[in-house]
Amino acid sequence: MRPSGRTADQLREVKITREYTMHAEGSVLVEFGNTKVICTASVEKGVPRFLKGSGQGWVTAEYGMLPRSTTDRMGREAARGKQGGRTLEIQRLIGRSLRAAVDMKKLGENTINIDCDVIQADGGTRTASITGACVALVDAIRHMQRKKMIKTDPFVQLIASVSVGMYKGSPVLDLDYPEDSNAGTDMNVVMTEEGGFIEIQGTAEAAPFSQNEMTAMLALAKSGIEELVVLQKKALDE
Amino acid sequence: MRPSGRTADQLREVKITREYTMHAEGSVLVEFGNTKVICTASVEKGVPRFLKGSGQGWVTAEYGMLPRSTTDRMGREAARGKQGGRTLEIQRLIGRSLRAAVDMKKLGENTINIDCDVIQADGGTRTASITGACVALVDAIRHMQRKKMIKTDPFVQLIASVSVGMYKGSPVLDLDYPEDSNAGTDMNVVMTEEGGFIEIQGTAEAAPFSQNEMTAMLALAKSGIEELVVLQKKALDE
Amino acid sequence: MRPSGRTADQLREVKITREYTMHAEGSVLVEFGNTKVICTASVEKGVPRFLKGSGQGWVTAEYGMLPRSTTDRMGREAARGKQGGRTLEIQRLIGRSLRAAVDMKKLGENTINIDCDVIQADGGTRTASITGACVALVDAIRHMQRKKMIKTDPFVQLIASVSVGMYKGSPVLDLDYPEDSNAGTDMNVVMTEEGGFIEIQGTAEAAPFSQNEMTAMLALAKSGIEELVVLQKKALDE
Amino acid sequence: MRPSGRTADQLREVKITREYTMHAEGSVLVEFGNTKVICTASVEKGVPRFLKGSGQGWVTAEYGMLPRSTTDRMGREAARGKQGGRTLEIQRLIGRSLRAAVDMKKLGENTINIDCDVIQADGGTRTASITGACVALVDAIRHMQRKKMIKTDPFVQLIASVSVGMYKGSPVLDLDYPEDSNAGTDMNVVMTEEGGFIEIQGTAEAAPFSQNEMTAMLALAKSGIEELVVLQKKALDE
Amino acid sequence: MRPSGRTADQLREVKITREYTMHAEGSVLVEFGNTKVICTASVEKGVPRFLKGSGQGWVTAEYGMLPRSTTDRMGREAARGKQGGRTLEIQRLIGRSLRAAVDMKKLGENTINIDCDVIQADGGTRTASITGACVALVDAIRHMQRKKMIKTDPFVQLIASVSVGMYKGSPVLDLDYPEDSNAGTDMNVVMTEEGGFIEIQGTAEAAPFSQNEMTAMLALAKSGIEELVVLQKKALDE
Amino acid sequence: MRPSGRTADQLREVKITREYTMHAEGSVLVEFGNTKVICTASVEKGVPRFLKGSGQGWVTAEYGMLPRSTTDRMGREAARGKQGGRTLEIQRLIGRSLRAAVDMKKLGENTINIDCDVIQADGGTRTASITGACVALVDAIRHMQRKKMIKTDPFVQLIASVSVGMYKGSPVLDLDYPEDSNAGTDMNVVMTEEGGFIEIQGTAEAAPFSQNEMTAMLALAKSGIEELVVLQKKALDE
Repeated sequence: MRPSGRTADQLREVKITREYTMHAEGSVLVEFGNTKVICTASVEKGVPRFLKGSGQGWVTAEYGMLPRSTTDRMGREAARGKQGGRTLEIQRLIGRSLRAAVDMKKLGENTINIDCDVIQADGGTRTASITGACVALVDAIRHMQRKKMIKTDPFVQLIASVSVGMYKGSPVLDLDYPEDSNAGTDMNVVMTEEGGFIEIQGTAEAAPFSQNEMTAMLALAKSGIEELVVLQKKALDE
Repeated sequence: MRPSGRTADQLREVKITREYTMHAEGSVLVEFGNTKVICTASVEKGVPRFLKGSGQGWVTAEYGMLPRSTTDRMGREAARGKQGGRTLEIQRLIGRSLRAAVDMKKLGENTINIDCDVIQADGGTRTASITGACVALVDAIRHMQRKKMIKTDPFVQLIASVSVGMYKGSPVLDLDYPEDSNAGTDMNVVMTEEGGFIEIQGTAEAAPFSQNEMTAMLALAKSGIEELVVLQKKALDE
Repeated sequence: MRPSGRTADQLREVKITREYTMHAEGSVLVEFGNTKVICTASVEKGVPRFLKGSGQGWVTAEYGMLPRSTTDRMGREAARGKQGGRTLEIQRLIGRSLRAAVDMKKLGENTINIDCDVIQADGGTRTASITGACVALVDAIRHMQRKKMIKTDPFVQLIASVSVGMYKGSPVLDLDYPEDSNAGTDMNVVMTEEGGFIEIQGTAEAAPFSQNEMTAMLALAKSGIEELVVLQKKALDE
Repeated sequence: MRPSGRTADQLREVKITREYTMHAEGSVLVEFGNTKVICTASVEKGVPRFLKGSGQGWVTAEYGMLPRSTTDRMGREAARGKQGGRTLEIQRLIGRSLRAAVDMKKLGENTINIDCDVIQADGGTRTASITGACVALVDAIRHMQRKKMIKTDPFVQLIASVSVGMYKGSPVLDLDYPEDSNAGTDMNVVMTEEGGFIEIQGTAEAAPFSQNEMTAMLALAKSGIEELVVLQKKALDE
Repeated sequence: MRPSGRTADQLREVKITREYTMHAEGSVLVEFGNTKVICTASVEKGVPRFLKGSGQGWVTAEYGMLPRSTTDRMGREAARGKQGGRTLEIQRLIGRSLRAAVDMKKLGENTINIDCDVIQADGGTRTASITGACVALVDAIRHMQRKKMIKTDPFVQLIASVSVGMYKGSPVLDLDYPEDSNAGTDMNVVMTEEGGFIEIQGTAEAAPFSQNEMTAMLALAKSGIEELVVLQKKALDE
Repeated sequence: MRPSGRTADQLREVKITREYTMHAEGSVLVEFGNTKVICTASVEKGVPRFLKGSGQGWVTAEYGMLPRSTTDRMGREAARGKQGGRTLEIQRLIGRSLRAAVDMKKLGENTINIDCDVIQADGGTRTASITGACVALVDAIRHMQRKKMIKTDPFVQLIASVSVGMYKGSPVLDLDYPEDSNAGTDMNVVMTEEGGFIEIQGTAEAAPFSQNEMTAMLALAKSGIEELVVLQKKALDE
């Protein structure tokens, strides 16, 4: 029995709100239950130095949490003077994942900066971030097309992400914080809309996990991500 | 004629939404037109070193802007590794202002951390922050009373803030970004609900301002803050 | 009765010594009583990136205190690895104030760097800094004219600054440290030689201040700044 | 055909040299072919703040690369003033993995600091680090037993790690740099000596990977790690 | 022929002004010709962590240059966020040198913080700093004795310092900037009033130096330091 | 009697192993007894900004210690976010010393980056670093000649370094850690193969040292460096 009363294969209520703030080319509020993240996609001319003159574009991501997005207040990273290891790890994951959504050659020498800022956390902030940011990314690409910044469509495929884990010995989908903090294994899965794997990061928290457990978790992840892709598409059609 | 069509003494539409996020003891979304700030008040046992053993409490504030809260994306301060001068200046102002709302002796050796995070900016983020954060502060104090952390009520008075300025030669209230970026003078005023001054910070941007201009601006500020206090009280009564 | 025995409208003894050090284009030791600040103005070809190609110049300022300029030794900011909020706030104020003394277009693409370093502090370091640095700035401009770096005179007007405050219920001019640390209100005023306001920063330390108190304080500031301008002019004529 | 001429399921030559340097309680040079890492385990009394008084110990890890361990010289992280995201990610992985080797309660309030410093890199530095550091960790635990710092044996199980990937469409074991930089998928696997999973981190570099590909890669990883455990045990028996 | 017209064994005019600023327990302006350094000695109760409980005291030093103490303006170290290698090297030298002037056991668990801040540089700032700071240190010790902070006199001996070098093939004493920037060898010597060596740091700038050249330079240093000690004593007797 | 049983003028066993790692143009493991340092010389096209367009090259050095190269584990400088004063001092010394080995004009606009990383410390790490790095530097220059990056040979002379000191009242050569930590005086000497002085840095640890003691120490250094140069040449001939 899950603390939330959900079945093992049940996502939390997921909402994707586009045009959430007014300045960014793509701006999405994504909610996985009580986890709420503002995802913006900002278009900028030019590329980082290592790509100058290559004709290719770039997609990169940054991640942050408001200090009181969590149960206890965390120190503000800007005040401490550096981003922690967890933050860097997550924003590297978001960036790598979203680059699979875009054909960099067709993007031309433009950069799309993704910002994922958690305003309320209840587990799964990185998977919600990837899922919401992909929608913001599509809006930013559409903006570039409307503004004639690019000639062909660099969009390749939707990318979505969900967590799975072993909770009290059973595989469960989309862990919230009470589950996450007690899970035996925690695994974040990123997939394409076609069902290909982009990233798998699984960590045994309490005890090692077996091949069978992994197979069961991946099956849950696959069906969860299929649902998320449907919600992404629905949001983008509105 | 103001770009927004407002009269010289007219505030933007102001909204104060309490319990905006779920973890903080006080959590307010404050909106001054398109300027939107999440203000949280977090209660923490203990005080900074310089107050240990004094029996007194402390109220302090931090301020940040989401990178794409602005027209152009700003670098993330956490990634750059330090808070800029403007940020430090604003959070010092917020902290000083809100300390006037609280009797530190009655607060006991507890700290209230204010976080003001701008999710959308259109001028006046610091005045909206002070106005919204004061409501979050009251909620945090009420929480402390419910939890019996304090015996007497440390709340002293409401504090609110608004900007005034000289725009095209005339004094105007509550400048939005199009006005702010063209104002001859920009002045931020913080007052108590009784009409006493807590802070005045006036800057001549283009040309020096005169005593008469200042008097006119302060009169606008006074009436604007009276309106804001009414809205704070209304929000707190809900 | 003021601790120093001065009357309410009396400045401390003010001394402005030009050519205090030998390398800078403008170099002034300014003394407001026991407060002593070395103000240098350094001319540099070129401008910050945001002005490149604009044909305009720039004036910017930095501020520091020697570690033992104060009653108790403060940590050295260079050793701590960052400038504190107070330092950044003050140097931003000095820079903004002095830019009102110069016509940036006539300055050409040159930068004048102001450095204000407090060697002994007894209250009013920021107002002494502005008052002394303006004289150093004029010397730097004269140097540029002698060296034919500029064709027309970019100097606009003298800028001076003084503090005022409410001390034991009465308005007083030019607070020293014993007054400053006990003042109910502390206000720093920057004005042009013509009597226009450039900056007003007033802070209620103990209790809110009223409109009448502000009017009284501003009158003191005005007369004090008139005296300071006379001293600046006298120094510049020597 | 692999660049090195190895078969798909063939490890590089692996060497584990104990007592490599003289000061550390555990000191191992681990070589996976041309990848060479010095792994030390340093015993320290006391634990980080969050564990004080818990009776439990801690294992933590840091990772670094000598600037010229790589084909091109990298900037020295100490000189740049911060550890990069990749470094933090790797050292977090090493620390999490090795904590599965130790019963923290039996360790008492002692900390074992693992340092993995790459002196020559040719792919797979993080997997070599985990494999070598586990041997150094065992030596450190044995030292603590000899010194009577602990009463019972906190060692739980050996942990080893290897990379697998899709190279030119085929799954391969233990990628060297020429393979790694051209791999379609790169996966790092950490397992216990019993064959349980501790960590899986798989990243699609060029194209998404399928469930079947993952199954094939994990089978290679499992057999590779079995071989590594044999080598760890052999080294520890010498 | 030296640029200044001095003979090879001639010091610049040296002035030592005590009680230069009002807050520090010891405060000296030291001038070696145009090189001017404010040296303060600040007494603080307590010692760094590594000496707590030892019964011993500590003397430590920090060094800085005002940004425009030099011919061209240098970046402010506090603004750049770190002290440069040269600064750290010099302040370590000053600290080590002055510790030879004090018996740490007799100092008790007190710290004397030396600050040497260069307000005008013309070569030899580190040697002037040591020479001036030693006088400030003596004043700080006398203050501690007057305040009964210590029972016995921890003062051991005067320490002074001067530079020597090879300039146009000849050994010269007390190099100013025009000499220093063209010297073949630059050597800083620190000695006790009894003529013992505390530090020698010699660097070949253009060509290696010989044993004979070193002997000649050391003889100049010895006689120069004897003169400086006479000036220190004279200043302390006033 | 020395702790190691060596005679006063006896070096520890010195080994110089070339081609120690595979990527660097010059790579040397240098051992002075138990002190072991990896010295690499990395060739890079281009020069620092202050030399651009000068036609001249540059040699610079960085130094680090593995955290557990020492008896007790030191904090990792990369993790602490800055290099300590000792590190900066040593790497400045290494860079200055090795620049005497090269004719910068003949090097063309190329940079050679020296990295000295201590993997095991037992006293004398800086002198071993200089001695070993000079061999790596020669290998890097030979590489540049083979690759036709330079037309003429920029090598000037071998540079080597050794420490001397006063231990229990007697001058000794090449101090190991037990001697170094108890020495009355510690002196690091850098010389050319012709016997010219490049650097002398002598520090009185316990008591001042005399002219005679210095003469005796320098004689030891001279003979020690002659031996080291023989070993450098032998290594380079292999």
